[in-house]
Amino acid sequence: MLRIVAITGMPGAGKSTAAQALVKLGWTRVVMGDVIRAETKRRGLEPDAKNTGEVMKLLRKERGESAVADLCLETIARLKAERVVVDGIRSMAEVQAFRMKGEVLLVAVDASPERRFQLLKERGRKDDPLTYKMFVERDRRELGVGIGKPIALADETVSNQHATPGRLAAEITQVVERWNRHVAA
Amino acid sequence: MLRIVAITGMPGAGKSTAAQALVKLGWTRVVMGDVIRAETKRRGLEPDAKNTGEVMKLLRKERGESAVADLCLETIARLKAERVVVDGIRSMAEVQAFRMKGEVLLVAVDASPERRFQLLKERGRKDDPLTYKMFVERDRRELGVGIGKPIALADETVSNQHATPGRLAAEITQVVERWNRHVAA
Repeated sequence: MLRIVAITGMPGAGKSTAAQALVKLGWTRVVMGDVIRAETKRRGLEPDAKNTGEVMKLLRKERGESAVADLCLETIARLKAERVVVDGIRSMAEVQAFRMKGEVLLVAVDASPERRFQLLKERGRKDDPLTYKMFVERDRRELGVGIGKPIALADETVSNQHATPGRLAAEITQVVERWNRHVAA
Repeated sequence: MLRIVAITGMPGAGKSTAAQALVKLGWTRVVMGDVIRAETKRRGLEPDAKNTGEVMKLLRKERGESAVADLCLETIARLKAERVVVDGIRSMAEVQAFRMKGEVLLVAVDASPERRFQLLKERGRKDDPLTYKMFVERDRRELGVGIGKPIALADETVSNQHATPGRLAAEITQVVERWNRHVAA
């Protein structure tokens, strides 16, 4: 039986740190952003924030609101993985697509805008915002595609506002172990 | 200098429990829903669910998206309160209105849909949903007016998923005391 920990959260909140903690417990990580970035490159575009945003919109237009989740589910089937952490949920349509295929725990990782901007600056990924204005723009795009809904409707919320990476890892581990016991019972 | 703890969260998440914890510390609680009910009475209408809904729409039409926040600010000025907890933020326009007048800490109180439904059944307020279908409809209305945005953009998130009322009170107290030290510094 497929179990999916579906992680949502605003840019820079700490989704990947949380997901990596589950990888250490043997879960397989599938990054929704990687699927979009691969698709952006496949279309001959630089995978920057603007282009990946555009391609995500296009994918949804072409294949429906759960397009990226459907691509992830293809990857999961190919990997024959049964414990999967999906990193980067952006809509309830995606959550519902995963719920059709297995047991899902929707986890929101939260941090304030100020803290997320700081964490993104420390990360410095290619598509990360260079200025606070770009950061606010990116937040606006994410909220525009409806990421506020899975955050508001999450089964569990983990705050990364004051946590160290180790503390965040411990929190999500506790949440997932509680859920595992619950699903098994 | 006015300090406002602005509390957002989905129906049943535990906003009032969190706000009451701050009242015990000497903060003045202003409930956004109460302000709408008072305005409804002022207009000679019975403050039932239908009329308060109508008045809220009218207020926004007459005075803009931050109308209810603006009325709260009038109440706060009248009370000459300097430490205020505002219960029931629904949009970023409201948060911005408060930020024009003082230091604001935006706190989201979160719990899963299943837990919120259970908490609402226990509360049994007149306007609380009787069935899960009604509950989902109410969630949809709240998300439709954009409550996902302040939840996603909160400065602090407090989970009420597994907390007792005492534990939730302790959590928000800790969050606000940390903020007080930060603002004072």
